[in-house]
Amino acid sequence: MFELQGNRAELLEKIEDGLNRKCYAALRDLLLPMEAADIAGVCTELGEKVPLVFRLLPKELAAEVFVELDSDEQELLISSFSNTELKEVLDELYLDDTVDIVEEMPANVVKRILRHSDPEMRKSINEILKYPEDSAGSIMTTEYVDLKAHMTVEDALKRIRRTGPDKETINVCYVVDEGRHLIGLLTIRTILLAEEDDVIGDIMERHLIAVQTLDDQEAVARALSKYDFLALPVVDKENRLVGIVTVDDAIDVLQEEVTEDIEKMAAMLPGDKPYLKTSVFETWKARTPWLMLLMLSATFTGIILTHFEKSLMACAILTSFIPMLSGTGGNSGTQASTAVIRALSLGEVHFSDLFQVLWKEFCVSVCCGLCLAGANFLKMMLVDRWLLRNPAVTPQVALVVCATLMGTVFCAKLVGCSLPLLAKRVGFDPAVMASPFITTIVDAISLLIYFRFASALLGI
Amino acid sequence: MFELQGNRAELLEKIEDGLNRKCYAALRDLLLPMEAADIAGVCTELGEKVPLVFRLLPKELAAEVFVELDSDEQELLISSFSNTELKEVLDELYLDDTVDIVEEMPANVVKRILRHSDPEMRKSINEILKYPEDSAGSIMTTEYVDLKAHMTVEDALKRIRRTGPDKETINVCYVVDEGRHLIGLLTIRTILLAEEDDVIGDIMERHLIAVQTLDDQEAVARALSKYDFLALPVVDKENRLVGIVTVDDAIDVLQEEVTEDIEKMAAMLPGDKPYLKTSVFETWKARTPWLMLLMLSATFTGIILTHFEKSLMACAILTSFIPMLSGTGGNSGTQASTAVIRALSLGEVHFSDLFQVLWKEFCVSVCCGLCLAGANFLKMMLVDRWLLRNPAVTPQVALVVCATLMGTVFCAKLVGCSLPLLAKRVGFDPAVMASPFITTIVDAISLLIYFRFASALLGI
Repeated sequence: MFELQGNRAELLEKIEDGLNRKCYAALRDLLLPMEAADIAGVCTELGEKVPLVFRLLPKELAAEVFVELDSDEQELLISSFSNTELKEVLDELYLDDTVDIVEEMPANVVKRILRHSDPEMRKSINEILKYPEDSAGSIMTTEYVDLKAHMTVEDALKRIRRTGPDKETINVCYVVDEGRHLIGLLTIRTILLAEEDDVIGDIMERHLIAVQTLDDQEAVARALSKYDFLALPVVDKENRLVGIVTVDDAIDVLQEEVTEDIEKMAAMLPGDKPYLKTSVFETWKARTPWLMLLMLSATFTGIILTHFEKSLMACAILTSFIPMLSGTGGNSGTQASTAVIRALSLGEVHFSDLFQVLWKEFCVSVCCGLCLAGANFLKMMLVDRWLLRNPAVTPQVALVVCATLMGTVFCAKLVGCSLPLLAKRVGFDPAVMASPFITTIVDAISLLIYFRFASALLGI
Repeated sequence: MFELQGNRAELLEKIEDGLNRKCYAALRDLLLPMEAADIAGVCTELGEKVPLVFRLLPKELAAEVFVELDSDEQELLISSFSNTELKEVLDELYLDDTVDIVEEMPANVVKRILRHSDPEMRKSINEILKYPEDSAGSIMTTEYVDLKAHMTVEDALKRIRRTGPDKETINVCYVVDEGRHLIGLLTIRTILLAEEDDVIGDIMERHLIAVQTLDDQEAVARALSKYDFLALPVVDKENRLVGIVTVDDAIDVLQEEVTEDIEKMAAMLPGDKPYLKTSVFETWKARTPWLMLLMLSATFTGIILTHFEKSLMACAILTSFIPMLSGTGGNSGTQASTAVIRALSLGEVHFSDLFQVLWKEFCVSVCCGLCLAGANFLKMMLVDRWLLRNPAVTPQVALVVCATLMGTVFCAKLVGCSLPLLAKRVGFDPAVMASPFITTIVDAISLLIYFRFASALLGI
């Protein structure tokens, strides 16, 4: 009863065993107390047997499980449904979930779903489908409680009792005027704690935050999280209430957006399927473009190295420190860019903070650079020269390497922190300016510094 | 009224102007319709003037703003409060917010807060402070609505109306027996839609999910998000209800945990302050350890290069492709490790999927490797040999580089996907196995492959 992570393998075995022995009553007793999300988790492993399990569940739970399934399994189920079964499931679904499903299904399945939705539902689905992907309109639901300002609390409670069962939430109710303009909101707590003859218009909250249908879904989710709301009203350009976005959908959006950011920061094109559900081809398609671009841009470092071939021939030991320098430069840059990208996406930093950010990273780079250079000098003297007895590692060479190290860290931090801010400024996605991109730039800078110091200090 | 992002600069100017001209009434009218989180956002920029603004706000709004402030500003405010003012603010706060504040304040401020909380509050604060950081107990609130199974809906509504104003949420109510054991829950919707003489014990949900006080806060937040709950009950080992965690706190936890993961993946020690609020010293402390470790571990690549110094002397052009090889290896590894780390943290992948993951990455690495090697061969022939007229770039050299490229991508993907899974298995944090760590390993492997191919194909 109280476990967060039940023993999945054991449960799965029990269910498969029940299915094989056709002990449907026992199976039903096993499933009934489970949460929909957990049943859906198990269904993923059952493959072709999902419809069998699904038919054991009571209507309401079945619909909840259906929503939680991946689109492959939803499609499989729909194709196994009779028309009556399909209609039963659809009747139980909330509008926004139905829209999510419709968006993922192939055209023939969508047609079948629309044919078996009731006319009002069909109209609403078509309305929501019109909004662009990733907009507030596309994730909202139209199933909210609306009240009028002239109602008494008693009227309002009656209305909530009458219409409540079909609404996605009754925790926040919205007040609209005759033209359906949004004029206020009340939480269910305010309503319950008021007197029966209080008038809604007097007790409602008039200062409210709403989003427009075309606002970006991430901005909507961030607002819900910033203001600790359970729902946000969505209005059209004339401020007419058209739907609400609830907090559970906002959490999903936040998670998706973070995953996208992380993928971009690791030089991948963002996908929208879970890792194991993404095919090899799709993964390949998401990963190759950036790899290719970054590989080809390494031509520059190659040209630099070819250009200084003679210096390297004259002092071969210099080659062996190139990976260390480029690695440390890359890591320093990654740290700065990642910190700034995350701060940007949490709204902690804006472009106007550029100079503050640069100054901060300047100070940090000096401190980090000094530490690293000092440690590296000691390491080169003790390990490379003394322990590994490499006579080529002279104090002069160590000096060149350490000076380059400081310069590299310095450039890496400044490039790393400023590129995401500049990207944001010109309307690019800052997340793309993350480690791989910056590493390539810093690699080239670091080599140029290296050979400059080498020629100055070693005279080559 | 309906703006998500008001013009901050303009607003700030208005407020500062109001403060300077001492137009407090106008200022109050300006602030009243704003959301607490937005007022707090402006306060950050006001510095020493925060207490002045704060005193203009009505008690309840003032408390909400107080919660949203950073701990520096909270401390400043508390030190400017008279004892009566402090008590007034504390009385308005919810318990979990008070605990959050107490956790951040220095000892003398904590003493003052505890002295001015009422005795019951003080006891609850001390209880919660006992739970380890990052546990469910530390983020829960004890201000929930509890009902008894024998109550009628009418009794329950009376109780909610009486105790509701002080509770963090009334949207979910919990049913406990005489020994305070959790036996069921009801949403406010269920209660409102029931008949007045229905008995709570008959209509409550008995299948419920609860967490224990010592469960990890991230697991709690993931459960709330997975099951789309608005609150989760927290029980002790004897299944007695001790508190609840609400969805707004869960969102904050999810955001914090993601930030921590991202920081770890970029080779930083996670911090808990916003970017611009972190001092240079703290940033330096968070960034240097990993940089140092990764720098020193590059000794291995240095040793490999020194070892093959003669080969490099014999065919100097090989050096110029080292940055490209190590960069591409690093990026390929990062892609795989990032994808797996994120999938692990979203619960999409488990250690038992190791072979499936390895197979998938194997296939992807072959596809990516072939593409990259092909493109690189063309580039070396067309750009390096033909366009830049470098006679050292022979087809044999290109073959060595491309074969190494394929081998590197292959190893990078397999190391990248398996290390996070293995880390998870042995109880380490998979996020630490991200790009910088894997890059260092892949660098060494890639060089070994390079020289092996060079000696085989070029006979050096």
